[in-house]
Amino acid sequence: MKGFVFHCPGQASWQDVPEPAIEKPTDAIVKVCVVTICGTDLHILRGDVPEVRPGTVLGHEAVGEIVEVGSDVRTVRPGDRVLLSCITSCGRCRFCRDGSYGQCRGGGGWILGHLIDGTQAEYVRVPYADLSAHPLPATVPSEEAVLFADIFPTSYEVGVLNGHVHPGDTLAIVGAGPIGLAAIATSRLFAPERIIAIDMAPSRLEAAHRLGADAVADAHEAPGQMVADLTDGLGADVVIEAVGLPESFELCTRMVRPGGHVANVGVHGKPATLHLEDLWIKNVTITTGLVDTYSTPTLLRLAAAGRLPTGQLVTHTFPLNQMEEAYEVFSKAAETGALKVVLGGEQHAEVAVPAA
Amino acid sequence: MKGFVFHCPGQASWQDVPEPAIEKPTDAIVKVCVVTICGTDLHILRGDVPEVRPGTVLGHEAVGEIVEVGSDVRTVRPGDRVLLSCITSCGRCRFCRDGSYGQCRGGGGWILGHLIDGTQAEYVRVPYADLSAHPLPATVPSEEAVLFADIFPTSYEVGVLNGHVHPGDTLAIVGAGPIGLAAIATSRLFAPERIIAIDMAPSRLEAAHRLGADAVADAHEAPGQMVADLTDGLGADVVIEAVGLPESFELCTRMVRPGGHVANVGVHGKPATLHLEDLWIKNVTITTGLVDTYSTPTLLRLAAAGRLPTGQLVTHTFPLNQMEEAYEVFSKAAETGALKVVLGGEQHAEVAVPAA
Amino acid sequence: MKGFVFHCPGQASWQDVPEPAIEKPTDAIVKVCVVTICGTDLHILRGDVPEVRPGTVLGHEAVGEIVEVGSDVRTVRPGDRVLLSCITSCGRCRFCRDGSYGQCRGGGGWILGHLIDGTQAEYVRVPYADLSAHPLPATVPSEEAVLFADIFPTSYEVGVLNGHVHPGDTLAIVGAGPIGLAAIATSRLFAPERIIAIDMAPSRLEAAHRLGADAVADAHEAPGQMVADLTDGLGADVVIEAVGLPESFELCTRMVRPGGHVANVGVHGKPATLHLEDLWIKNVTITTGLVDTYSTPTLLRLAAAGRLPTGQLVTHTFPLNQMEEAYEVFSKAAETGALKVVLGGEQHAEVAVPAA
Amino acid sequence: MKGFVFHCPGQASWQDVPEPAIEKPTDAIVKVCVVTICGTDLHILRGDVPEVRPGTVLGHEAVGEIVEVGSDVRTVRPGDRVLLSCITSCGRCRFCRDGSYGQCRGGGGWILGHLIDGTQAEYVRVPYADLSAHPLPATVPSEEAVLFADIFPTSYEVGVLNGHVHPGDTLAIVGAGPIGLAAIATSRLFAPERIIAIDMAPSRLEAAHRLGADAVADAHEAPGQMVADLTDGLGADVVIEAVGLPESFELCTRMVRPGGHVANVGVHGKPATLHLEDLWIKNVTITTGLVDTYSTPTLLRLAAAGRLPTGQLVTHTFPLNQMEEAYEVFSKAAETGALKVVLGGEQHAEVAVPAA
Repeated sequence: MKGFVFHCPGQASWQDVPEPAIEKPTDAIVKVCVVTICGTDLHILRGDVPEVRPGTVLGHEAVGEIVEVGSDVRTVRPGDRVLLSCITSCGRCRFCRDGSYGQCRGGGGWILGHLIDGTQAEYVRVPYADLSAHPLPATVPSEEAVLFADIFPTSYEVGVLNGHVHPGDTLAIVGAGPIGLAAIATSRLFAPERIIAIDMAPSRLEAAHRLGADAVADAHEAPGQMVADLTDGLGADVVIEAVGLPESFELCTRMVRPGGHVANVGVHGKPATLHLEDLWIKNVTITTGLVDTYSTPTLLRLAAAGRLPTGQLVTHTFPLNQMEEAYEVFSKAAETGALKVVLGGEQHAEVAVPAA
Repeated sequence: MKGFVFHCPGQASWQDVPEPAIEKPTDAIVKVCVVTICGTDLHILRGDVPEVRPGTVLGHEAVGEIVEVGSDVRTVRPGDRVLLSCITSCGRCRFCRDGSYGQCRGGGGWILGHLIDGTQAEYVRVPYADLSAHPLPATVPSEEAVLFADIFPTSYEVGVLNGHVHPGDTLAIVGAGPIGLAAIATSRLFAPERIIAIDMAPSRLEAAHRLGADAVADAHEAPGQMVADLTDGLGADVVIEAVGLPESFELCTRMVRPGGHVANVGVHGKPATLHLEDLWIKNVTITTGLVDTYSTPTLLRLAAAGRLPTGQLVTHTFPLNQMEEAYEVFSKAAETGALKVVLGGEQHAEVAVPAA
Repeated sequence: MKGFVFHCPGQASWQDVPEPAIEKPTDAIVKVCVVTICGTDLHILRGDVPEVRPGTVLGHEAVGEIVEVGSDVRTVRPGDRVLLSCITSCGRCRFCRDGSYGQCRGGGGWILGHLIDGTQAEYVRVPYADLSAHPLPATVPSEEAVLFADIFPTSYEVGVLNGHVHPGDTLAIVGAGPIGLAAIATSRLFAPERIIAIDMAPSRLEAAHRLGADAVADAHEAPGQMVADLTDGLGADVVIEAVGLPESFELCTRMVRPGGHVANVGVHGKPATLHLEDLWIKNVTITTGLVDTYSTPTLLRLAAAGRLPTGQLVTHTFPLNQMEEAYEVFSKAAETGALKVVLGGEQHAEVAVPAA
Repeated sequence: MKGFVFHCPGQASWQDVPEPAIEKPTDAIVKVCVVTICGTDLHILRGDVPEVRPGTVLGHEAVGEIVEVGSDVRTVRPGDRVLLSCITSCGRCRFCRDGSYGQCRGGGGWILGHLIDGTQAEYVRVPYADLSAHPLPATVPSEEAVLFADIFPTSYEVGVLNGHVHPGDTLAIVGAGPIGLAAIATSRLFAPERIIAIDMAPSRLEAAHRLGADAVADAHEAPGQMVADLTDGLGADVVIEAVGLPESFELCTRMVRPGGHVANVGVHGKPATLHLEDLWIKNVTITTGLVDTYSTPTLLRLAAAGRLPTGQLVTHTFPLNQMEEAYEVFSKAAETGALKVVLGGEQHAEVAVPAA
C-alpha cells in the first residue's frame, strides 16, 4: 500500500509501505477514507519534533472504515465508519481514568504519526481501538468529520472549556488560523456576548467574520486598545492564544480582565515573559494543555444536529494520492489561503478536483 | 492620638495624628486593640509602593472595638469586637457582587494603610463597615484573630482554594515565611496526603514542620528532585508560590505534575520566565490573585472550633506604642527569627482594651 | 396616584393610593413605565399567599425611571431608566454575600408586592436601590426589558444553571407557560443538542416550537416514551419542571437519565412522591430554588446583543390604567391564549413615560 | 473449593463450589484473603434482590492475591495483593468514560455476588481486572483495606462529595451504622466545623463520638431542633442520609438550610414524601447515587498515610470458613453490636479467634 513517509528534516514522500497488521488484541486496522494535514505535521517535516524517527508514516487525523479488529475490541466492528482521534487512550492508567487521555501513561497519548505509523496512508493500525476510534453518525460527511480528529476538540477543550467561556462573556481570540477559527465556532456554543478575533492576515480575519466573530482586529493595530474600549477598560473575560509565539501570549495576558482567563492553545517553541509584577494582583487564571478528546462524542453529536459550521474551514481538497501536492498547498498558506486541506473522500473516488 | 506615619522612603514614626471621624454614613470608627505588621508594610517603607502618600498612617490588619458608626451601618454596633480586614468592600460594584472584593471598583479593595489612613494607630476610620469589619467569636483571642486580617485568608483563598487542593494531594509550598506557613495550616483543611515545604532558612523549615509539613527541603538542594522522587517522577498536584521572586515561581512551574495547579501568592516586582515550550503540553493551571477575604467568616468559625493552629505563627509581641521597635524586629527577620509580630492586646495592658 | 390594591381573596382594584416617599437612605422612588403580571399575582388574588396584607399594592416586575434617591444610593441616579427586579438585596447578610439574594436575611428577598407595596402603580419605593434596580442598556425596549424582572432570570438560574445544561445535552422541559418558554430561550445559550417541550395546550406547544424547541410532546401522550426513544432508552440529561404539580414533578424524575439533573422551577402547593426505591441508585441530582437575580446584568447584556428572543413572549399589551382588564385576560389564559401581558410603554402613549 | 452460596430467600451455606477460571482476556483469578459482609448481602438473603439467582456465590468486597490473569490484563500481575472493588468497570462505555463506573453499560457495575459469583469464597473470577482490582500499598493491612471495597468510597463519593462538604460546614449524618460512621471519617477530610450524628442506638452514637462526631442526637428526641439550635435556626449545610427509610429521608429535608445539600446514601425500598410545598423556595440540592469507586485510589493513599481511622469500624473477626457464624453475628447487630465483620486475614491463618 502507499503512505506518506518522513525521511529526514525536509524530506518526505508518498511511497510504498508495508500494510499494517493487528499486533495486540485491542488493535484495529482501518482503511483510510479521508485525512487532513495538521500544522504539527509541518513542524515534524522541519525537524522540530525529533522523536519522530525516519521511516514513520505521518498523520494523526482521519476518517476510515474498520476492516479488522483484535480479539478484545468490543465497541467497534469491521464495516463501521469511524473517526480516528489524534489522541489514543489506554483507558486504564491514572490519567485515562481522569479523562486526561492526552497524558496517557499506558502507551497512548499522541502516538499516531509521531511514535508509530500514522493515518496518511491507505491503511493504519489503531491501538486501543475501543477508546480511540469513534463511530460516526450517518449524517456527518467524512470530509467534515475529519475536522473532529483534532482541531475541533482542541479548540473546544483547551480553548473554550479551559477558558471557562460563559454566556455574556467578551472573548478575544488571538490567531485566526484553523485552531482559532474552530475556537470561534465552538465558543459560540456558550453564547458569548462578543467574540473579537485578532490576526495579521486579512483573509483570516474575513474567515473569522464568516464563522461568527463580532469584531476583528489587525494584530499590528493596538488590538488591546480595541478590547479595552469594548469593555470599559476592564479587558476580556476570556482570551484564547492560538498562535504559539511569545509576543502573542504576552498580548493575551495584557488583554485579560481582572478575574479573567487566558487559555493557551498554541504550540510554543520558546519561553514567554510572564509579567507577574502586573499580574500577581489581577486574579488571572492561565491554562495550558494538549487536547484529551474527551469531548469528541459530544461535538460529533452537535455536528450531526447542525450546531457547528464544519464546512467553512476546508479550503482545498485532493485525492489521497496527491499528498505531496496537498502538503505544498498547506505549507504555503500565506500564498494559497489554505485553512484546512482535506484528502480523499467521495468526491475524489476517481480523480482529483481542486476545490474553491 | 498616636499613629505610625509614613514620611518618605526610609522614614516613618509613631507620632501624634488627628483622630479620625465618620465621613460617610457607611463608615465606622474603631479603637484599635491589636495590630500586626505585614511584609507589604516593609515594601511601603522601602518606597516600593509609590501610591502611598507621605503622611499616611500605615497598617491594614487589626482587631478593635467599634466606638461609633454612621447612619447606614446595620450589621455592627458600638461595643462590638471586630476584625478589620485588609480588604474593604463597597458591596455594590460588579466585582463585589461576585465576591471579588479585592478588585472592588466602588472605593474599596486594599485601601487601609495604602490609599487612606490605616490601622497602626489608636483609632481608625473603616469605610463600608458592614462588609469590612467582622464580628469576632468570643473564643478567639484578639492576638490570634488579627492573623485573619490578611495572612490566613490570603494563604487560603489565593493559595489553597485557587490551587484546588484536594484530599490525597501532594502539595509543595515554596517559601515558609508567614504566608507559606499559613498555607500549610489552611491546606490541611483539605487533608492532602503530604505537604512539602521549601525554604532557605532552617528556622522557617522547622516552623513548617511544627505547623504540619510532612517533608521539608532546602531551596538550594534540588527540591524539585525531592518532589519528583516522592511522586514517581510526576510532580506535585499543587504548588503554592509564597516568595515573590522569578526563580521561585519558575521552580514552581518545574515541580508541578501534568494536570496540576500552580497558585501564585507571592508579591512580585519583576517578570518571570514562563517556559511555554515545556508547559504548553502539560495541562497546567496557573493562578494569581489578591485576597478577597470572602472566606474570613468561615476561617474565623474554624478558628473558634480549634481547627486552625493560629498561635504558632506569632513570635514577638509588643505594646502598641513600641511600633518602631516592632518594625525593627520584623524587618530583620533573618536575625530575629520573626514570623508575625503582634502589638497590643491583653498582655500589654497599658494599651489594651477590655475584650468583649 | 393610582395603584392596584389587594383587598381580600377575590377582590382587588386600580384605585387611588398615597404616593411613596424615601424612608431609608438606601431607597429610591421610581416612576413606573411598564409592568407585567405574574402567575404569583394570581395566586395572591386567590388567597394562596396569606402573608400579603389587605391594602398592599401588588406587582414585583417593572421598568421605570428613577425620580428620587436616598442619601446613600450611589450606583443609580434620577433620570436613569431601570429594571426593578422581583428580588431585593440588602447586600450585607451572609446570603447576599454569597449571591443568594432570594434568601436575603437583611430585609430583602421577594418583598415588592408581597411584604411591601409593589410595582403595579404609578410610583414605587425601591429599597436597597443600588442592588435591586438595574440600569438598562439603551437598545433594550422597556416592553421587553420588563421580562427580565422575573421570568428570564428565574428560568435561567433555577432551571438552566441549576440543571447544569451543557452543549450537546438532551433537555426536557415540562410546562410551556411563560417560565417554560423562557427556559427554552435561555437554555439555548448552552447549545443543547435537542430541547423537548411538554405541555397539554397545543397553543403553548406551538409557542415552544417558535422559541426553539426541537420536539414537542402532549403531556397526555406518554412523553416519557418519546424522551426514551430519542435517547436510546437512557432518559434526558436535564429535565426542568415548570408547572408546580406533583404529577409533573414525578414525570420529571421518571424522564431523567442516570447521572442527570432535575431542576424544579414550579411553585408547588402540595408534596410530591419521590420514588427513592428507583432513584437511590440512579445518581440523580434534584434542585429547587427561588430566583436570586444574580444573572440579571448578564441576561440584559445578552438581550442588548440580540441573543435572546424576548419579544415572542408578549401576547397582549394595555395602558397602565387598564390593569383590571389586563388581569382578566391574563387569568383566563386558556381562553385568551395569553402568555405575558404587558402594561404601559411607548405604544400606550397616554400613560407612557419618555424613555432615557 | 468452598464458597458461600445463596439458595433461596432465607437459605445460604458455606459449601463446595467449582473453582473459577479465566473466561475473557480481561479477567483475573484472585485467591481471597479477607472478605466482609455488607448490609446488601442481608437484603439478598431476605429475598429483596430478586435478580440474584439461586446458586450464586455472594460477596462484593474482598482483599486477595492475584493468581492468574487473562492475556489482556496489563496493570496487575500474579502475586499482587489487591483490593476487589464492589464495582466492576468495563472502562469503555460512555458511563465509564465519565468515571460513572457504577452505571457501567459494558458488563460492569455491581455484578460480583449479584449477577456473577462473588468474593465470599476461596477464589473469585474478577472481570475487567485492570480497572476493578486495586493494588494495595504495603502499609495498609488487608483487614483494614477490605473496608475500601465499599463503605469508604460509598460514604465519601455518595455522601461527602455529592453533599459538597466544605471546611467550616455544619454536617448532619442521619444513621450511624457502618456507612454513616464511614461518612464521619471521610467528611473530616474536609474539616467541617461540626458533625452531628443521629441514630437510635446508643452504641452507634458512642461509635460516632469515637470516630469524630462533635455532637450526637437520639433520633427520637427532636434532632432537627438540635441542628436548628446549633445553626441559628438555619439548618445544616449538608445532611447525609445513611439509613434508607422514608422517615429518615424526610428528616434530612427538614434539617437542611436554605442553599444546602441533602446527599442520600441509604438504599431505599419505598418511596418518600418530598415536601415541595416547603422546599421549592429553599434552593436545596438533593442527590442520590450508587458508588462509582473513582475515589478508591485516593482513599487508599490517605489510608496508607494514616489519615483515615479504618480500624475502629471492625467489631468482629472470623476465619473464612466460619462464614455462617459471621452472617449470624452481623445480621443480629442490635444484639451483638456488630459494625463491620471481617473474615480471613493473618490472624486467622490457622484458627478462629473471636475479636473484641
